[in-house]
Amino acid sequence: MSEETYDIVILGGGNAGYACALRATGLGMSVAMVEEDKVGGTCLHRGCIPTKALLRAAEVADTVHESLDWGIASSFTGIDMAKVLEFQSGVVNKMYKGLQHLVKAHKVELVNGRGRLTGPDTVTVGERVLHGKNVVLASGSFTKSLGMNLGNRILGSEHALFLDHVPSSVVILGGGVIGVEFASVWKSFGAEVTIIEALPHLVPNEDEDVSKGLEKAFKSRGINFLTGTRFANAQEDESGVTVNTEDGQQFRADYLLVAIGRGPNTADMGYEEQGIPMDRGFVLANERLHTGVGNIFAVGDIVPGLQLAHRAMMQGIFVAEEIAGLNPRVVDNDNVPRVTFCEPEIASVGLTEAKAKEVYGAENIVSAKSNMLGNAKSQMLKAAGFVKLVQVKDGPIVGFHALGQRIGEQIGEGQLIVNWEADAEDLAYLTHTHPTQNEMIGEAAMALAGKPLHG
Amino acid sequence: MSEETYDIVILGGGNAGYACALRATGLGMSVAMVEEDKVGGTCLHRGCIPTKALLRAAEVADTVHESLDWGIASSFTGIDMAKVLEFQSGVVNKMYKGLQHLVKAHKVELVNGRGRLTGPDTVTVGERVLHGKNVVLASGSFTKSLGMNLGNRILGSEHALFLDHVPSSVVILGGGVIGVEFASVWKSFGAEVTIIEALPHLVPNEDEDVSKGLEKAFKSRGINFLTGTRFANAQEDESGVTVNTEDGQQFRADYLLVAIGRGPNTADMGYEEQGIPMDRGFVLANERLHTGVGNIFAVGDIVPGLQLAHRAMMQGIFVAEEIAGLNPRVVDNDNVPRVTFCEPEIASVGLTEAKAKEVYGAENIVSAKSNMLGNAKSQMLKAAGFVKLVQVKDGPIVGFHALGQRIGEQIGEGQLIVNWEADAEDLAYLTHTHPTQNEMIGEAAMALAGKPLHG
Repeated sequence: MSEETYDIVILGGGNAGYACALRATGLGMSVAMVEEDKVGGTCLHRGCIPTKALLRAAEVADTVHESLDWGIASSFTGIDMAKVLEFQSGVVNKMYKGLQHLVKAHKVELVNGRGRLTGPDTVTVGERVLHGKNVVLASGSFTKSLGMNLGNRILGSEHALFLDHVPSSVVILGGGVIGVEFASVWKSFGAEVTIIEALPHLVPNEDEDVSKGLEKAFKSRGINFLTGTRFANAQEDESGVTVNTEDGQQFRADYLLVAIGRGPNTADMGYEEQGIPMDRGFVLANERLHTGVGNIFAVGDIVPGLQLAHRAMMQGIFVAEEIAGLNPRVVDNDNVPRVTFCEPEIASVGLTEAKAKEVYGAENIVSAKSNMLGNAKSQMLKAAGFVKLVQVKDGPIVGFHALGQRIGEQIGEGQLIVNWEADAEDLAYLTHTHPTQNEMIGEAAMALAGKPLHG
Repeated sequence: MSEETYDIVILGGGNAGYACALRATGLGMSVAMVEEDKVGGTCLHRGCIPTKALLRAAEVADTVHESLDWGIASSFTGIDMAKVLEFQSGVVNKMYKGLQHLVKAHKVELVNGRGRLTGPDTVTVGERVLHGKNVVLASGSFTKSLGMNLGNRILGSEHALFLDHVPSSVVILGGGVIGVEFASVWKSFGAEVTIIEALPHLVPNEDEDVSKGLEKAFKSRGINFLTGTRFANAQEDESGVTVNTEDGQQFRADYLLVAIGRGPNTADMGYEEQGIPMDRGFVLANERLHTGVGNIFAVGDIVPGLQLAHRAMMQGIFVAEEIAGLNPRVVDNDNVPRVTFCEPEIASVGLTEAKAKEVYGAENIVSAKSNMLGNAKSQMLKAAGFVKLVQVKDGPIVGFHALGQRIGEQIGEGQLIVNWEADAEDLAYLTHTHPTQNEMIGEAAMALAGKPLHG
């Protein structure tokens, strides 16, 4: 056994862990980071990045199919999945290389292996015993499977991402972010897609206008979906999978994708033994991400809240600064911006209109929508959708919700508005650039301010 | 002669004029708006909208050409200009229809004809004499031609927009916004393009990093350009045009596009006779857009400053509210956001780094760039470029400059940052969404705040 001591030992090299490691070393601390797979974690290797690469390829396929609508004559000759995967791995590898370089340049001690918390200041990895003046738990999440065996005809996203062919048909269990993104990709690639969602709407955490808008768009794209429908079971065989719902419907497809969410990766890692407070596998840290045990912090997907890479990174940075005594601002858990990259895209931050009414009282909430029908740039993209602002009467804008092609990138202005607690007047006097999709934010704000430009 | 009286008579139905008309009627005023052509003006019919439609078609052409890079097999079979123009006019007509509907619904008296200011409160249009308690001059701008006759082999943008074929070669006089946008379209459509710019850089009003980045990108796209090169003259004939520069170079092309800017459309409209203060054709209004004569205001391209549709609209709205006694905030002339829609796109607001150093002293200015090489979403788009923030040390961010594919839509966050006088700390604690291009703004802010995430 070798014994080593660091300012921080980080258990997990995903976004939360590596952001913490880079910031901590930047602040002069010594850091060991334990990772059993590749640094970069789920997001880089099996999550956001490879998914969004597929979505980009899907967007290209759509553009090619419809190119004559813009006057560009072309013929589509097929999805070359080998090339798609080459593009996908090209992006992943470029990012991975950059990250490895950074980790090295920052002199982070990267410990390859499965780590286990074996004391309040100790992580053990095989023969190596790493002592940390501080320990950061960043062990991430895994695909929930309802106990089904994933990898053959029943897939998790980590399998679906790297399929070497376009299936002819897929059933997707779950109409949340992961489900609708894969539905979008496969439909663009030519597959028959059916989503089964137990809740009354697709993307049920979004504002109802967004959910309804997405459903309308998916309908017109020919993506099948059942909402308010509970999955019963699935049987796989050589040629495909048979999926049954509780209400007695049966579907046959090449594959079933299980996209019902991600669970915290905390089992059998020694957390309970060290007295870390847990709830259904999640680590209960306080708002400063301290677990209440020794100098142990927790960050990323194991901490209840939105399991998003950017939240994880901000938490990682926060903890590094907290340990360094910089007294950083708490990472807000409510106003984390969210983008879903299906076609049409979704961007949101803050409260849905329904939630805002619950919090502030229905009579105190106003909202305004700017529709892409009146937005020239969106018309050029043949995009349909809207930007919606939810405001407390005579108070701040507390929700930003948008749907439509390419609208994801509007999240930048959206999140400043919500996080800086702007009201409509703060926005309405500003000039939004013509002709952009961004103009819609200005138009919605002007409408809220009682001075609609095109109303 | 018929005599009519309105609260406001507006001379010109472009963006400035119609925005003023809609806001004023919304505030309960009676409005006559005089337009000799179509309501919507240059932007809608011969400017922003048809240009951006061509740029969208060009983007589609690029995507089709390169689709296999993303794994989508296709073959390009040609630019169908009839279809491109059909798409273009489709967008224009949809917007035009919406605008006509609005003007009608707002009960704006639309007077078709050429108006002339014939008294401090009078505009005459043929037989109709319109009296306004207030008069708003909004007569717009025209393409400068250096005295050349435009429309055959020597074109203005209003001709180039509607060419029914792709030229095999074009020389473009002027490397400003209009010049680089057309260069981009024609190159994507397969033409040989050469830009002649007298100043040392393309897009010479942008930050030097942007200019240099665009030049690099254009070089790699095979767009030819000469900077620091003065145009001498051009001779057109049946088959094309011969262009000579002052340094003795000669170019032969199908067409010459004259894109040296736009002049104020104020000649022979009665302005001088009524004592309106003018300078080289521009109307000199004060910051509240009053001309100093009677109750005459001026808005849009005839007022010195950036000739942009969105600035014009905000000025139009401002004047309506000013007349209504709402004491609106002055429309800022310095921090107007700007987007150039060439490939790669440009977005900017506020001061260039050079200008900021001039204003605040070089030692008081810092800047940070986030490069698309490290941005996953940009890599998926095969985009190259950057986001740059220019900050006063321990003070606000005074400049936002960005270059790269699709970066135009980042102007929304950029303009809030600059117009709300945010500093790097105001941004660095916020979570930017992964994986977006928008993240680059967060990364640049974090770098400025001394905590680079990936640095």
